[in-house]
Amino acid sequence: MSAPPLRRWARGLAAVAGLGLLAGASAQARHDQLASWTDGPAKKAIVEFVKATTDKSSPDYVPPGERIATFDNDGTLWAEQPMYVQAMFALDRVKALAPQHPEWQTQEPFASILKGDLKAALAGGDKALLEIVMATHAGMTTDEFRQIVKDWIATAKNPATKRPVLEMVYQPMVELLAYLRAHGYKTFIVSGGGIEFMRPWAEKLYGVPPEQVVGSSIKTKFEMRDGKAVLVRLPELNFIDDKDGKPVGINQHIGHRPVAAFGNSDGDRQMLEYTTTSGGLRFGMLVLHDDKAREFAYGPATGLPDSHVGTFTQALYDEAKQRGWVVVSMKNDWKRVFPSGQ
Amino acid sequence: MSAPPLRRWARGLAAVAGLGLLAGASAQARHDQLASWTDGPAKKAIVEFVKATTDKSSPDYVPPGERIATFDNDGTLWAEQPMYVQAMFALDRVKALAPQHPEWQTQEPFASILKGDLKAALAGGDKALLEIVMATHAGMTTDEFRQIVKDWIATAKNPATKRPVLEMVYQPMVELLAYLRAHGYKTFIVSGGGIEFMRPWAEKLYGVPPEQVVGSSIKTKFEMRDGKAVLVRLPELNFIDDKDGKPVGINQHIGHRPVAAFGNSDGDRQMLEYTTTSGGLRFGMLVLHDDKAREFAYGPATGLPDSHVGTFTQALYDEAKQRGWVVVSMKNDWKRVFPSGQ
Repeated sequence: MSAPPLRRWARGLAAVAGLGLLAGASAQARHDQLASWTDGPAKKAIVEFVKATTDKSSPDYVPPGERIATFDNDGTLWAEQPMYVQAMFALDRVKALAPQHPEWQTQEPFASILKGDLKAALAGGDKALLEIVMATHAGMTTDEFRQIVKDWIATAKNPATKRPVLEMVYQPMVELLAYLRAHGYKTFIVSGGGIEFMRPWAEKLYGVPPEQVVGSSIKTKFEMRDGKAVLVRLPELNFIDDKDGKPVGINQHIGHRPVAAFGNSDGDRQMLEYTTTSGGLRFGMLVLHDDKAREFAYGPATGLPDSHVGTFTQALYDEAKQRGWVVVSMKNDWKRVFPSGQ
Repeated sequence: MSAPPLRRWARGLAAVAGLGLLAGASAQARHDQLASWTDGPAKKAIVEFVKATTDKSSPDYVPPGERIATFDNDGTLWAEQPMYVQAMFALDRVKALAPQHPEWQTQEPFASILKGDLKAALAGGDKALLEIVMATHAGMTTDEFRQIVKDWIATAKNPATKRPVLEMVYQPMVELLAYLRAHGYKTFIVSGGGIEFMRPWAEKLYGVPPEQVVGSSIKTKFEMRDGKAVLVRLPELNFIDDKDGKPVGINQHIGHRPVAAFGNSDGDRQMLEYTTTSGGLRFGMLVLHDDKAREFAYGPATGLPDSHVGTFTQALYDEAKQRGWVVVSMKNDWKRVFPSGQ
């Protein structure tokens, strides 16, 4: 991945990660790793939880091997409005592949996408969506797909803000990932997004290596091609890592229950339940998008209609309060939202 | 896991693993980590490969994050004769569960198992096998299954040798796992065996944590039971991590191609092809069971008929020679086979 935005990010993250590697860093230095958080209740809850689970004299001490923290991606680690980044990718790929598919000029949902009418394209519901995903995510080897994603994301821009999608990562959450790792936590992404869509950039962006990314997937098939073993991506769903699927994916990939889980929508409910109902001191956190000035505002506490992307219902909000999950107000708990300083 | 045999193992392994953590250990000290290997061609090939991929001045240098090594389990890390350990578990579980299933007294394949006639039980082929697996591996939560496996393995004995199965691990391979980790490799198990059957003991036995175990699986379902989130194991196959499935499982769980892969049978062929045909210096190794005196003898180079458990065909042997995979002779390359010194 050689494009300037990603390089810039990689350098910034290396600096953040480096802090955590300072042996014998004082409690104060560790505290500063969360510099983009205001000194409010959310930061206090994080620091107290990490202290309680990593101090050997604490009754809530968790051995290093069991310090598993899982993070949703869209809306939790980076912006998901006005649409998921992977949806932007799929639409761009339809346009890029159109010359090889003259039939798409008249065939839905592709014809509407090519005319720029997204609403008409999605009128076909799940079937249309699946056709778009399979036309853009299957039919190549895993190595080829990785390169396509790397090339695309290096220059992709958010259609609402016109800023690189790689710059719309949440700086406080990047700090939180590094802070947890500095305290012996293994950090995993557990997202409804495509596992192979996230892996090409998750390590440079978040410090999360490919083997610690859990996501949705399509099936693949082993083949020998010109003497080289490859995996071909098939147009067939394998696993949907959302809602009920998140604990299933966690168990399949990680094999432990997490000790801490971070999300922002109804798709994360079961992951937080699986994490926090297992006994012992556990941590659940939901990011609430209530900062229209710096990012986007949606969800029950904003007074605005709920969003189809990143749905955060009143029922989830009520459950969070009842279970003691921390609800992060982007407006009040974050000094800055993006690394650019905004 | 509190039974004495496993405790003993854990202590032994901790000692081995500790060697690898000595900062600045000399090349000689590292070499001694493979003390159970004779100074033959297999050990030489391992040491040279690790040196070439971890020495920064080497043209074959591999950065730490990409140092992925995958190991088959049955027949590669521990004994698989006269039957897979997981098959012993399934048969024992049928006997343990029989009082709750009076119908099994007359219902195949259970009736034959209860009479001790394994051959008759397996006459039903794959269908019978699947019924045995589902009757013994499904219907409980993942937490309950973990405990059942832990309790069982603590006292399980190999029916041929009457020795604890936990003592029939291959000492040279345990040393190899620790040696690779000491050189910055992440070690994964990639086995046809059940992922949730292996995880409860793989960390103590091999130093491989649950999130680095890849295996076959059945489906699970999220449920709330008495206010606690659980996953229930369903009698439905999810994934077979064998043959063509091993590269698929590696890609799904690890997301990198391995740099080194270790196996012992035709079930490992595609994993080794996927590892060694990707360009760059790569390492493939197959363990040949040619030591009747200390373990078991089967496979093409032994002059004995091939085995249905851990099949190692002449075709695989020929491919190994052609591709430059190292074939380990247990008889000649290993000073001792088991930690007991045998």
